[in-house]
This record gives sequence, structure tokens and C-alpha cells, in this order.
Amino acid sequence: MSLAHKGLDFTRVPTRFPEVRQIEGGASKTVPVINDGGTIVSDSFAIAEYLEDTYPDRPSLFGGEGGRATTRFVESWTQWVVHPQLVRVAIMDIHDCLSPEDQAWFRADREGKFGKPLEDIRMTGEEAQEAFSKSLDPLRATLKKQPFVGGEGPLFADYIVFGAFQWARVVSAHEFLPAGDPVADWFARCLDLHGGLGAKVPACG
Amino acid sequence: MSLAHKGLDFTRVPTRFPEVRQIEGGASKTVPVINDGGTIVSDSFAIAEYLEDTYPDRPSLFGGEGGRATTRFVESWTQWVVHPQLVRVAIMDIHDCLSPEDQAWFRADREGKFGKPLEDIRMTGEEAQEAFSKSLDPLRATLKKQPFVGGEGPLFADYIVFGAFQWARVVSAHEFLPAGDPVADWFARCLDLHGGLGAKVPACG
Repeated sequence: MSLAHKGLDFTRVPTRFPEVRQIEGGASKTVPVINDGGTIVSDSFAIAEYLEDTYPDRPSLFGGEGGRATTRFVESWTQWVVHPQLVRVAIMDIHDCLSPEDQAWFRADREGKFGKPLEDIRMTGEEAQEAFSKSLDPLRATLKKQPFVGGEGPLFADYIVFGAFQWARVVSAHEFLPAGDPVADWFARCLDLHGGLGAKVPACG
Repeated sequence: MSLAHKGLDFTRVPTRFPEVRQIEGGASKTVPVINDGGTIVSDSFAIAEYLEDTYPDRPSLFGGEGGRATTRFVESWTQWVVHPQLVRVAIMDIHDCLSPEDQAWFRADREGKFGKPLEDIRMTGEEAQEAFSKSLDPLRATLKKQPFVGGEGPLFADYIVFGAFQWARVVSAHEFLPAGDPVADWFARCLDLHGGLGAKVPACG
């Protein structure tokens, strides 16, 4: 989304869980990783900052230095509140859509991190759904005041949160956002951005 | 804090709970309210926007349009996550430091809003403290990356969150932020800003 926002051409390279650590000769333990004419950058925020500094004449991802700083808070909120809940709801769905060998790798890796079986990490039921919806109140309240976290149009602050929900849409058939929720409406707007870049990624199932 | 950030002189006018609705001839149901040479503005965010637009040559409260937009998210998070928990922990302390007639007004007003006695609204105990501390994770993670929400220096995004904790410090002897917490360190930095403007307000007790 950040590359498209900047109007930059790019080629996507699909990968598999166990191969992430070999991308670009072991540049990173996690995706995303970009290679911009030989410059390797990993981590979404670092990539956005690299793009902003390298292509300052193209549409801004932060809308100024204040935006860059406060977007760190949006990133932290996504990492600490949104992502962990999506993971715990979707964890069996992620597992189920992997190849058998990737399933074995994923189970061993995640069970090691959580210290319990995948089946016990999973959050289900109405209570989990309600707690998740409630935790989105700050985003919901923001989107009642303006169409995007970035204001009238999207900024990197939107793409951070969008990335978490897009990932959930792609790996899980679970309906994370009920129709009519301002967060669902915003997510639909994000899917349509940049020529429907997000919407073109097939949903799970 | 926003007035001081802009380097503007101001006179404070103390008021009482039941009199808030009479400020400036009934301009607002809530504080803060400012009167800038005849222009009345209420609501912290609206005041910050007014100051930013009216005094653009003074230090910025948002650091650009992207900062202004994403600061709405910080505001929403403070309103939906931080403030309700502070209120519920401090509610009896607020009550206890009011005059007898203000106590009666406060009890009737708040019990009407919550639909139960003040004593039942109050949150106490270790579980509430842990849930509160956990809910601050996004702020804590941000402050591990940079000294202020606004980056290297404070912006209005800091003052929003600071305002909630400052209010709690002034009305309650409860220790909301344990020593050593990055959020406590940030709060101490905020208290020292603008010649110790925040620190000069006496704490409860």
C-alpha cells in the first residue's frame, strides 16, 4: 500500500513461512522486505520512512514530522491491541491453509512462542468477539470524525491498521468486522484504494 | 499546556462543577473553555485547532496536517481507554475533595450517568490495576521508541494524554503509574514542560 501510495512500480515475490529468514540473503526474520535497486529495507514502518525520505516529492505517507511521530502510536496500538487478537482468533485458519510441511513448521514455531498447543491459543465465542469489538472503540471513534486515520485521505497510519485486517481477511473466513461498523466501512474504503490493490488479493475460502 | 506551547499569556479562572454550564454565558457543557479576546472556544481539540490556525507562526501543536489527523486517534484512545478507567478508580477521591454542596451535585449527576451508586462505579484491587497497566501498552511501546508521542519534543498528542493523568494526579492520591514505568517517566517529563507548568498544580492530599 505504501509503494502504491508513492506511485512506485513493484514486483511481488511470494514466499513461504520457513523461507522468510532466507529472503535477500537473510536480511530479516520477518516480512515485509523490499529491495529498491539494491537497497534492502525490512519492517513496515522502516520501509515507509525509507520511501518518505527517498521519494519526498511523491505523495506523503505521514503528512509532516508530527504525523510521522504520532503514527508510531497507531503502530503500537495495532501491534499490542489489534494484531494479537486477530492472531488468536485466526490461528487454526492460518494453520489449515498451509501445506503439510509448512503446517509442521508453523505449529512448532507458534507453540514454542505461546507455550501451548495451537488449539489452546485460539480464542473463540461471543465473549472474545465482544472484547475484540470493544478494543476497536478508539479506531471507531476516530472514523466517526473523519474518513481515514490520516484525515480526508489515507496515510501510512491507515495502512498499518489495514495491514492487520487485510491479513486476517486473507487467512481466515471468520467475520472480524460486522457490517455497519464504521471500522468495516473504513476497511472497505481501504480495499478500494489504489485501483483496488487490496481487494484484488483473494479472501480465504 | 497548548497555550504555553504556543507561548501565549493567559489567566486561569477557577470554577466549580455545577457552574461549568454558566461559563461565558453558557458556551459549553464542559471545560476547558477559552476566551481569546472575545472568541470563545470549548473542547481541548477544538482549542488546539483554533490556536494552531490563529497563531501559525508560533510552535506547532500538530507538526503538520498528518499530525493533526492522526492526533484524533490519540484523542479517541485517551477518551475510550484511559479516561474511563481513571474515572472509575478515582471517583470516590473526586467526590471526597469537593465541598458538601458540590458533592451532592456530583453524586446525583454521576450516579445518573452510570446508573449505579458511586461506590459501585469505583474500580479497586490488583486486577483493575493490572488491566489498566496492560491497556497502556500502546503508549508504553511508543515511549520506548521516542521521548514524546509527538517525537523528540511534545505536541498536542502528548497534552491530550497528559491531561487525563494530570487530572488523576490532582484529584486522587492513588498511584496510577508505578515508578520505572516508561509512561511514568514520560509523565514526569510532561510535568516539567513549560517551566514546570503541570508540576505547579498541587497534587491531591
